[in-house]
Amino acid sequence: MTLHHPDLEPLILVNFKTYSEATGKKALALARKIFEIGNQTGVKVAVAPQFCDISQIAIEVGVPVFAQHIDAFGPGAYTGHVTADSVKAAGATGTLLNHSERTIKLADINSAIIRSRDSGLLTVVCAANVDATAAAAVMMPDMVAIEPPELIGTGRAVSKERPEIISNAVRKIRKVNEDIRILCGAGITTGDDIYAALKLGAQGFLIASGVVRAPDPARVMCDFCEAANRFAEASK
Amino acid sequence: MTLHHPDLEPLILVNFKTYSEATGKKALALARKIFEIGNQTGVKVAVAPQFCDISQIAIEVGVPVFAQHIDAFGPGAYTGHVTADSVKAAGATGTLLNHSERTIKLADINSAIIRSRDSGLLTVVCAANVDATAAAAVMMPDMVAIEPPELIGTGRAVSKERPEIISNAVRKIRKVNEDIRILCGAGITTGDDIYAALKLGAQGFLIASGVVRAPDPARVMCDFCEAANRFAEASK
Amino acid sequence: MTLHHPDLEPLILVNFKTYSEATGKKALALARKIFEIGNQTGVKVAVAPQFCDISQIAIEVGVPVFAQHIDAFGPGAYTGHVTADSVKAAGATGTLLNHSERTIKLADINSAIIRSRDSGLLTVVCAANVDATAAAAVMMPDMVAIEPPELIGTGRAVSKERPEIISNAVRKIRKVNEDIRILCGAGITTGDDIYAALKLGAQGFLIASGVVRAPDPARVMCDFCEAANRFAEASK
Amino acid sequence: MTLHHPDLEPLILVNFKTYSEATGKKALALARKIFEIGNQTGVKVAVAPQFCDISQIAIEVGVPVFAQHIDAFGPGAYTGHVTADSVKAAGATGTLLNHSERTIKLADINSAIIRSRDSGLLTVVCAANVDATAAAAVMMPDMVAIEPPELIGTGRAVSKERPEIISNAVRKIRKVNEDIRILCGAGITTGDDIYAALKLGAQGFLIASGVVRAPDPARVMCDFCEAANRFAEASK
Repeated sequence: MTLHHPDLEPLILVNFKTYSEATGKKALALARKIFEIGNQTGVKVAVAPQFCDISQIAIEVGVPVFAQHIDAFGPGAYTGHVTADSVKAAGATGTLLNHSERTIKLADINSAIIRSRDSGLLTVVCAANVDATAAAAVMMPDMVAIEPPELIGTGRAVSKERPEIISNAVRKIRKVNEDIRILCGAGITTGDDIYAALKLGAQGFLIASGVVRAPDPARVMCDFCEAANRFAEASK
Repeated sequence: MTLHHPDLEPLILVNFKTYSEATGKKALALARKIFEIGNQTGVKVAVAPQFCDISQIAIEVGVPVFAQHIDAFGPGAYTGHVTADSVKAAGATGTLLNHSERTIKLADINSAIIRSRDSGLLTVVCAANVDATAAAAVMMPDMVAIEPPELIGTGRAVSKERPEIISNAVRKIRKVNEDIRILCGAGITTGDDIYAALKLGAQGFLIASGVVRAPDPARVMCDFCEAANRFAEASK
Repeated sequence: MTLHHPDLEPLILVNFKTYSEATGKKALALARKIFEIGNQTGVKVAVAPQFCDISQIAIEVGVPVFAQHIDAFGPGAYTGHVTADSVKAAGATGTLLNHSERTIKLADINSAIIRSRDSGLLTVVCAANVDATAAAAVMMPDMVAIEPPELIGTGRAVSKERPEIISNAVRKIRKVNEDIRILCGAGITTGDDIYAALKLGAQGFLIASGVVRAPDPARVMCDFCEAANRFAEASK
Repeated sequence: MTLHHPDLEPLILVNFKTYSEATGKKALALARKIFEIGNQTGVKVAVAPQFCDISQIAIEVGVPVFAQHIDAFGPGAYTGHVTADSVKAAGATGTLLNHSERTIKLADINSAIIRSRDSGLLTVVCAANVDATAAAAVMMPDMVAIEPPELIGTGRAVSKERPEIISNAVRKIRKVNEDIRILCGAGITTGDDIYAALKLGAQGFLIASGVVRAPDPARVMCDFCEAANRFAEASK
């Protein structure tokens, strides 16, 4: 599966955070559901579980798996750190970097992008506003994700509450990086939120509580994927 | 397996760090070897692999597994962090905390000890000198490990180069915590180093490159375990 | 002025934080007021202003000045850090360490205590609960300060809301360090709060908003100092 | 003094780090020397002393003073942190951010730039390589400084050892920010190093040990300033 090209159909990447609903066996079950819905609807999906759950999901499910973070270290004497090599060996396809709950230094974003590239991992650098996201895009990760922290976990979708954030981000990012895939996130809970964001130029989504903590995660994923397909139809 | 009581025979805990010799499949193979030698010699052994390798080793090998670190967070919206619950769900028996390559805040050591206890994980708090190790012992982890950083990875054993560090640590720690298991580490590469440390009052070992990067890790582990048994014999 | 001996009369140490009411010229004016009230009442007082305000206050006021934090570095190539030598050169008497708003690593508390001692600075290590405060006391700073973070800035005094925290801290700390001066803080706004804490065994106070953000800081300081004197009278 | 416009003559900004040669009274004396040489030669100079030395230098010398770092906090309950407001109140003209010895998070660079702008402080964001420097430039600080860390403090000048770093940086930065002033640093010890860097497009210098630890700092500053004037002559 290639996730690289920006012209491709959107990606829906579900971040499991450290939610108890998505830890251990429950992480495995949720990943399986998400993968099935991706297959049924033909929409690209991926999951970002906790480190300890990466290998099981990668081996048993087959869905593309992203780490939630890596440290900017190579192999060696780095007790307690997470290397690109270790998540790759566990079967990961890529990694988030600089999530608003795990922000890192500019220099470490830069190093981690380079290490990930060397290890064959895709990178999604998250940032909280247009300027920081554009700054991240300059360092050539595979994707960036803009998430206004004040909307994360609120159910008030960035694409509806603050649509100008997405459109400004797309415009500013395109000036510094023509090819990068631009994800957005924060507060997305319905297919309509997805559709609105795609219209604004987003090419994918980073979603957490909207799926993980939904009463029926499968139903929400279906709703999201169908909205993505509806948008693809309308854009033909 | 209980690792709690200080009167028990010594524990040899092998820290895999992020060494390429102990990542992914190689981590699994090394853990298996260590477990077998523990079984053959009757010496308590445990391993501390990277987060991504915990579940495989716990499931397939059966050796007690320690995480190399946990963050002081519970379940929730903590992307990129490692919770007690997640390493416990992956099958871990315990966790290192505050290793010299992953030092943490005093407040986080305190919180992580409490969270670990609540999750049923044993804790080994590492520190670099006698004072800091005694300070750690006051917060009631299950074990402390003293490792002078200047000897880590050198092959010059703390028990031979700086024996007074171990004996001072034992004396100072016993004043503030009578029951805690005291491990030592740094530069240990031979059974003689093990024997010397046990004579000084150590009740276990935190060992990394001495085993992981040895030309023949199994032979070194045998040497260590036999030294532990020799000491037990001599102490009867 | 010596602040060392625990049998001495209590110390009231006012932390200016980064409050705008206590920055620049306002820091100087507030320090002057606090110093005068200390002189009038004969109670030991000290201030902990921001780094940039240390030298002016030390030179122009004469009140003992504490830094709010130092880094565990010596002189050298450590751009952007605060060394014991630099705050000492600016005229400081001591430094806070590990305040709940600037928590640091166990290893750095240990190193900073040693560096401070070498530079002739007194140290006050702050911690949030009994265990962490006792752990700090093992490393032999000159003082510890216990401040339950949930009460900081609330106006609900630790000595009234959670008196057992102070008495437990005193008991546990005395077991590991007989000589250390024990401060407390959090929510203290009246002389009665001071009196209650002294009865519980506190030997000083770390106070911030209770003075700095009071409508009339001088009046509050007077109230505090008079309570300290009342307690001294009653103890004779 | 305005330092804003990129067409202006170069700026030589001397970082005092935490060198003992530039702490306390010695910081004041060195700042005075640097200011005099700037005046004599007509070259723009500035100094970046430790926090505790800012106010004295700003008041007594008159040379533009930069903080070495600020935290991304406003006024409030942020014990031990350094706010834009506090360095501004002490008389600073600007601040370094993200120096290689005090690297910070992408999000904090972004916030600190905004806070500095609001407080009327100029910002110089440092970075270690071309990509990270260009990323910094996207966030609109007043200046960026590129310093390959492997050359810092070596006496091997970036402008001679790795001239392509400067020219690539200039090219890449100009694509994302037309107006920003581009400083360089690392290993610069002679006027020739200065001249070479100006030819490559640098508009200023961040210099530390090359001046501070020189046997005769005044002579080195003279050499630097004369080289800057020579280049200005040659460019007419």
